[in-house]
Amino acid sequence: MAVVRAPANPILTPQDAAPSPDGFEVIGVFNPAVARYRDEVVLLVRVAERPIQTDPEVVQTAFLDPVRGRIVTMAFARSDPANDFSDPRLIVRQGRTYLTSISHLRVARSRDGIHFTVDARPALAAADTCESFGVEDPRITRIGETFYISYVAVSPVGVTTALASTADFVTFERRGILFGPENKDVVLFPEAVGGRHYALHRPHSPLCHTNDMWIAESPDLLCWGRHRHLMGLRDGFWDETRIGAGAPPVRVDEGWLEVYHGADRNHRYCLGAVLLDAREPWKVRARSARPIFEPQAEYERAGFFGQVVFTCGLLLERRTLKVYYGAADTTVCYAEIPLDDVLASVRS
Amino acid sequence: MAVVRAPANPILTPQDAAPSPDGFEVIGVFNPAVARYRDEVVLLVRVAERPIQTDPEVVQTAFLDPVRGRIVTMAFARSDPANDFSDPRLIVRQGRTYLTSISHLRVARSRDGIHFTVDARPALAAADTCESFGVEDPRITRIGETFYISYVAVSPVGVTTALASTADFVTFERRGILFGPENKDVVLFPEAVGGRHYALHRPHSPLCHTNDMWIAESPDLLCWGRHRHLMGLRDGFWDETRIGAGAPPVRVDEGWLEVYHGADRNHRYCLGAVLLDAREPWKVRARSARPIFEPQAEYERAGFFGQVVFTCGLLLERRTLKVYYGAADTTVCYAEIPLDDVLASVRS
Repeated sequence: MAVVRAPANPILTPQDAAPSPDGFEVIGVFNPAVARYRDEVVLLVRVAERPIQTDPEVVQTAFLDPVRGRIVTMAFARSDPANDFSDPRLIVRQGRTYLTSISHLRVARSRDGIHFTVDARPALAAADTCESFGVEDPRITRIGETFYISYVAVSPVGVTTALASTADFVTFERRGILFGPENKDVVLFPEAVGGRHYALHRPHSPLCHTNDMWIAESPDLLCWGRHRHLMGLRDGFWDETRIGAGAPPVRVDEGWLEVYHGADRNHRYCLGAVLLDAREPWKVRARSARPIFEPQAEYERAGFFGQVVFTCGLLLERRTLKVYYGAADTTVCYAEIPLDDVLASVRS
Repeated sequence: MAVVRAPANPILTPQDAAPSPDGFEVIGVFNPAVARYRDEVVLLVRVAERPIQTDPEVVQTAFLDPVRGRIVTMAFARSDPANDFSDPRLIVRQGRTYLTSISHLRVARSRDGIHFTVDARPALAAADTCESFGVEDPRITRIGETFYISYVAVSPVGVTTALASTADFVTFERRGILFGPENKDVVLFPEAVGGRHYALHRPHSPLCHTNDMWIAESPDLLCWGRHRHLMGLRDGFWDETRIGAGAPPVRVDEGWLEVYHGADRNHRYCLGAVLLDAREPWKVRARSARPIFEPQAEYERAGFFGQVVFTCGLLLERRTLKVYYGAADTTVCYAEIPLDDVLASVRS
């Protein structure tokens, strides 16, 4: 697999985005969606921030108070045994879960696809009850002249995936929650198949301890049904504990190519590929036994949450997958992978 | 609350339904949906069965092998510490969950609403990958001349809710999965509101430890979106650990009346009521502080899973709620509650 990482990696870091409120610090700029718009490559990046930590004995976090409509902060003492900090992304206290940062989505623009300028203000930020812990991990699918953005909305009522749309990456319209809790890693297909829209999604079943990929169909992109189980975990493989769609699927001669992420029992996140039938996309035609892309560079192995490569968007151009990805939940990186290498891997 | 239980309770017991395969025993006939059809009251009851247990040292269970299309049995040694039998409904082994029984849905018919004859054969039984652990807890909503049945489909890929329909309670058509894992307690509204169909559903969020009620809308009853969080748990109340829709909502002068179930930390299941806005059913207008119906009779307190009253259907006739309910996950029972008592309870 001839993966070529950009020499400029990471192409965006927390230093490239100003905090959105005063007194906050940006700790992650990662997991970008991507689209071509006019003569630019546009990213919608996840910006994770938190109050500037002033007391080493206290973890300060922040969330939206949806009633008052403003960001409030909350402090958790490190010495309090009721506070569980074992996952750096979470604080668990008395059966309730809080996030250690709050994310919003911000536009970044580039002429060459490598050097990006990040907007000064958020494009989409926590705005209601279902987003009070922030919005995360967007995916962009262009259908006609509209760019549809599926994004994760997190709050005390669960992890859901909502839809927004834009025609110009300046104004954005919210379209409602597509999949109720617990659901993320939602990607929309870029065209209808047999007159129906399709989406991949990743519900979580606690009863059955599964983090599998499903496919749903829709008449209008807003309401989804006819859910089918698409593919599961593979014991002993790199994708043995969780999988989820990465970039929206791209059409290739052989069908729909989906680049997805998988994690093993050590929470090491890699990218793999699966080929879905062109006309019956709920049928898996081939799935690569090994990752097409693994965390190997220093910026992928170390960071806020290390050993992670995670894509939310790619461009297929000149038989090359131009993959934008989050590295270690900290930065935005870029790599190119020949399509034919990926297809060979999927078939083998 | 002037609850009047039928003197004939329980009106259906496991003895009233023949096992569907030879060598099985019925252990529960419970959680019925109800509809009036021609001059009869029709129930769709959940029938839970298992292989006849011949060895006291072994728990024998059964599920559908979806590839071979037949029921297979599986044995779990009681002496094996890897087998967790602490919940009588489940066997947990090496991170996998199995059910101790497999359920199907069967029609029962009555002229007087009290004395029912159960069909000899299942109406809907496990038929595919997503139903391999059985189908459970149906709800019937009549829209026009069609009876829509939302039912829970359980399998190793999760707990989902699917749709079937019938015009005559003889032939049934499957319409696909409405809500992916983990989701149950789905009820459809009996008429469109503002041109849209609505459903209550109950996703489970493991991250946030919530079992709350949500509302979704649909153009076609098959695809659902615009999910909104409807109502949550109430700490220290009878509905502090889980809630879910019971019977499909009924239209009253004041709005939509929903009889729902709630459980406390001791897994004691009661029924309560909530009033939703007539034109904006995602708005809770009033919610009863106390249950309208609690497990008190002997057949509600003791059984396969005691301290449970659980409704999947009721008839509103002459300002009386005619409630069909499962008692202790074992039998079908019937009670009448004056509508005005319920409305007074909701308002107080």
